Amino acid sequence: MNQKTYHIPSISCGNCVRHVEKAAKAVPGVTAVSVDLPTKKLSVEGAFEESALRAQLAEDGYPIDP
Amino acid sequence: MNQKTYHIPSISCGNCVRHVEKAAKAVPGVTAVSVDLPTKKLSVEGAFEESALRAQLAEDGYPIDP
Repeated sequence: MNQKTYHIPSISCGNCVRHVEKAAKAVPGVTAVSVDLPTKKLSVEGAFEESALRAQLAEDGYPIDP
Repeated sequence: MNQKTYHIPSISCGNCVRHVEKAAKAVPGVTAVSVDLPTKKLSVEGAFEESALRAQLAEDGYPIDP
């Protein structure tokens, strides 16, 4: 189990928040997700592979920075 | 073949444009799609069922108005 926070510059509206949450929740091992729109921060909890998270978000058009 | 334009109030950023375009293109019979961000207008060409288009977009969080 870990909890990590990521910056996703392309988050720009409430629909983005919904899409990023859905994409992150689809990653195996992820147990909880939250997105803060003003800071464009994604917080993820669980025993997940960060590479899988990055790949999933990039595929949906929301690459993690850097 | 027909060409129709729809108003989608929840379109609010460039990512929305991308998601709406992808959702509309997935509807059987749709041959061309364009989205204008400032006016929140979706234009669709093809021999498609409007009910299928409306259902697809609503499912993705972008319901057509009205």
